[in-house]
Amino acid sequence: MLIVRDCMLGVSRFDDFQERLGISRNVLTDRLEHLVGHGVLDRVPYQDHPVRHDYRLTEKGRDLWPVLTTLRQWGDRWQADDGAPVTLEHRVCGQPTTAIQVCSACGERLDMRSVRARRGPGATRRPASELAVVAR
Amino acid sequence: MLIVRDCMLGVSRFDDFQERLGISRNVLTDRLEHLVGHGVLDRVPYQDHPVRHDYRLTEKGRDLWPVLTTLRQWGDRWQADDGAPVTLEHRVCGQPTTAIQVCSACGERLDMRSVRARRGPGATRRPASELAVVAR
Repeated sequence: MLIVRDCMLGVSRFDDFQERLGISRNVLTDRLEHLVGHGVLDRVPYQDHPVRHDYRLTEKGRDLWPVLTTLRQWGDRWQADDGAPVTLEHRVCGQPTTAIQVCSACGERLDMRSVRARRGPGATRRPASELAVVAR
Repeated sequence: MLIVRDCMLGVSRFDDFQERLGISRNVLTDRLEHLVGHGVLDRVPYQDHPVRHDYRLTEKGRDLWPVLTTLRQWGDRWQADDGAPVTLEHRVCGQPTTAIQVCSACGERLDMRSVRARRGPGATRRPASELAVVAR
C-alpha cells in the first residue's frame, strides 16, 4: 500500500521508492514484482544501457485511489496528533478538499447508517460474506 | 478488517464472529481486544450470569465505513469473477448504490488525476510522507 501511495504522489523509480520507504532492495523488488504480477503496476523501460524501468499505476492501480484516500482521511482524523502530513487540493475548484461519499443513484451523502446490505450475485460462493441478521 | 466488516453487517457477538470468520477463539479474543484497545469497538454487557458482551462499533469504528466500502468496491470491480457478494441499497432513495467520491468544497467528482497533493501541517514529523516531485 505504501508503494501504491508513493506512485500516487508521483514516484516511479526503484531508487526513489527505496529511499522513501527505507526497505531493503530485495524486499522492494519482491513487492514491486507482486504488484506488477497482480496488475496494479506496469513496468515501463525508460533507459536501455543498462535497462531501467519506471513503475506506473495501471487502471486497476489508479482505482485504489479511493481506498487510500479514505484510509488516509481516517488516519488524519483519528491518529494524526500533529495534523495531516498531506492535504489535497482539487484542481477543478482550487480549494482544499476531502473526499465525501455520495450515492451513485441520487447524489445524496452516504454513510454506514444510510445503506442496507443485500446479497449480491456472487454471494453463494463466499460463505464468509453471508449477511448477518441486521437489527438496528 | 473482517471483524469490522462483520460489525457493519450487524454482527456483535463473539460466537457469531467465530462462526463467520472460522478463526480460533484465542485469535478472535486477541483481535477483539486489539480493536477495543484502539477505540474501534466498544464492549457492552448484554447479560449478567455469566457476563456476556456485545461488540459495537464506536464513532471511530463507524468512520472506517468509507475505507471498507471503497475497498469492497475495488474488489468487486477487479477481483470478483462471480459478481459482488454484497451489494448496497441506499435507504434514502431506495436504489442500489455505490459510493462515489466528490469534493467537499465544490461537490464535483474526485479522482486521482483531479487532485494535487500538498504538504500538510503534520508533514515535518513524518519524513516518509514527504511529497515526491510530481511531474504528470
